[in-house]
Amino acid sequence: MPVPDEKIFPHATGVAAKTVEEHQAPQDLVFYAGWFCPFVQRTWITLEERGIPYQYKEVNPYKKEKHFLDINPKGLVPAFEYKGKALYESLILCEFLEDAYPDAKPRLLPADPFERAYARIWLDFVAKSIVPANFRLLQAQTRDAQEDARAALTAAFAQFAEQIQGPYFLGEAFSLVDVAVAPWVVCDYIAVEHRGFRREGAGAKWVEYAERLEKRESVVRTCSDKEHYAEIYGRYLRDEAQSEVAKATRASRVIP
Amino acid sequence: MPVPDEKIFPHATGVAAKTVEEHQAPQDLVFYAGWFCPFVQRTWITLEERGIPYQYKEVNPYKKEKHFLDINPKGLVPAFEYKGKALYESLILCEFLEDAYPDAKPRLLPADPFERAYARIWLDFVAKSIVPANFRLLQAQTRDAQEDARAALTAAFAQFAEQIQGPYFLGEAFSLVDVAVAPWVVCDYIAVEHRGFRREGAGAKWVEYAERLEKRESVVRTCSDKEHYAEIYGRYLRDEAQSEVAKATRASRVIP
Ligand SMILES: N[C@@H](CCC(=O)N[C@@H](CS)C(=O)NCC(=O)O)C(=O)O
Ligand SMILES: N[C@@H](CCC(=O)N[C@@H](CS)C(=O)NCC(=O)O)C(=O)O
Repeated sequence: MPVPDEKIFPHATGVAAKTVEEHQAPQDLVFYAGWFCPFVQRTWITLEERGIPYQYKEVNPYKKEKHFLDINPKGLVPAFEYKGKALYESLILCEFLEDAYPDAKPRLLPADPFERAYARIWLDFVAKSIVPANFRLLQAQTRDAQEDARAALTAAFAQFAEQIQGPYFLGEAFSLVDVAVAPWVVCDYIAVEHRGFRREGAGAKWVEYAERLEKRESVVRTCSDKEHYAEIYGRYLRDEAQSEVAKATRASRVIP
Repeated sequence: MPVPDEKIFPHATGVAAKTVEEHQAPQDLVFYAGWFCPFVQRTWITLEERGIPYQYKEVNPYKKEKHFLDINPKGLVPAFEYKGKALYESLILCEFLEDAYPDAKPRLLPADPFERAYARIWLDFVAKSIVPANFRLLQAQTRDAQEDARAALTAAFAQFAEQIQGPYFLGEAFSLVDVAVAPWVVCDYIAVEHRGFRREGAGAKWVEYAERLEKRESVVRTCSDKEHYAEIYGRYLRDEAQSEVAKATRASRVIP
């Protein structure tokens, strides 16, 4: 009998719990988050990297409570309430922070128009090639489906790795491209433990980069204790998860 | 026996042929285009709206010629060569034009950070909900699959229509949101003729908006003669197309 997704552990733990605690005071920017969500983590990393004042509010997006649906009709975290108005979609929120807080340093997108477009090409790659392959791999139940998805994910990481200028994707500066992929690096141990995934399969450059990303302070500060992720990912591994992403993956539809 | 996609009609016709003719002189910005491609048309509309100098080069992307693959390793049009460097992905190219030509008027994204993020939410909606449903509908072979895809496309247009502020999506100003959806409006007669699609199904607001978009000068200036589209779309309707988009749609994978 599947554990309903509404019964997830209710709050961040470990290092992330401390970060949450430091962001309880009211601010112009309210950050609707779920401690367990890789999409949330992108926006959270961005807020932390740039030292933008925000108020963290934990939401269980599976409950689809009215107040939350008023903010994001898609019912997904992350979402912002900014001076009373609502926005959502992790990477759009990150770009919004670039535009709305131009003085918060560091900027995470290059100022040069060509370099900025180049960064967006790779954000698009993460969205179209890495993220869907990751969910396919976790939810795959047959050996064939697992092999297929594992090969796709490994190939996507390898293709991405070829373009890493080092130490970060675009070179010296940590950027939104690193932010976009980081949550899928920190949770790859699930695929290692349960789906035979190996970082080495994507090459030495990928391994080195992945290790650098998971040590980045903003990444560490937004991670909860592993035991609580195990509960969440268990539902994906048994293909019981009822999230929109899980349902779309199961039905081979575009993930929302 | 499927007609190979490489044998497409080789150049723009009708009004679009005149537009092509006016953009043959060498420029800093080389626009690699396919006259038949809805993704190309987005970038083309943007160039025309903003009066940006460009050199139009017709490419048959199905041939995957070496020179073109050097510019876009994905082998897709549209692509830019800008001062010797390459970029691709239709909406990324449009955003690049915003950043690289800030003085070309009109701007197609709002200056206000919140409004800009709001526009991006709807660009994302077009990409995730409208475009895939359109290709699914064209390629659907069984009655059930056609009904399912027709309902999905109609619902997506209706959901989009609810948010139209009028006369254009964001209000008075024609914007990138209008650009992003316009190519799927001008070709919807294919679905009307062959898949039982009706604009009215998406509501009166949608019908009015669609009629406004298809009369916009930049849209008209980038359309070829209908007879040549019929040849291209025929392959989709018989599910014989071998484009990356068609193959992804057939395999229920993320379209590239
Ligand atoms: N494309 C969205 C995806 C966000 C998303 O799927 N969030 C999940 C949690 S990881 C959620 O809120 N799920 C609630 C549900 O599926 O009902 C983004 O990038 O923000
Ligand atoms: N996501 C791309 C899609 C571009 C695309 O699929 N272009 C088609 C023509 S409509 C193409 O170049 N196809 C070549 C192929 O599929 O091999 C964009 O928005 O630019």
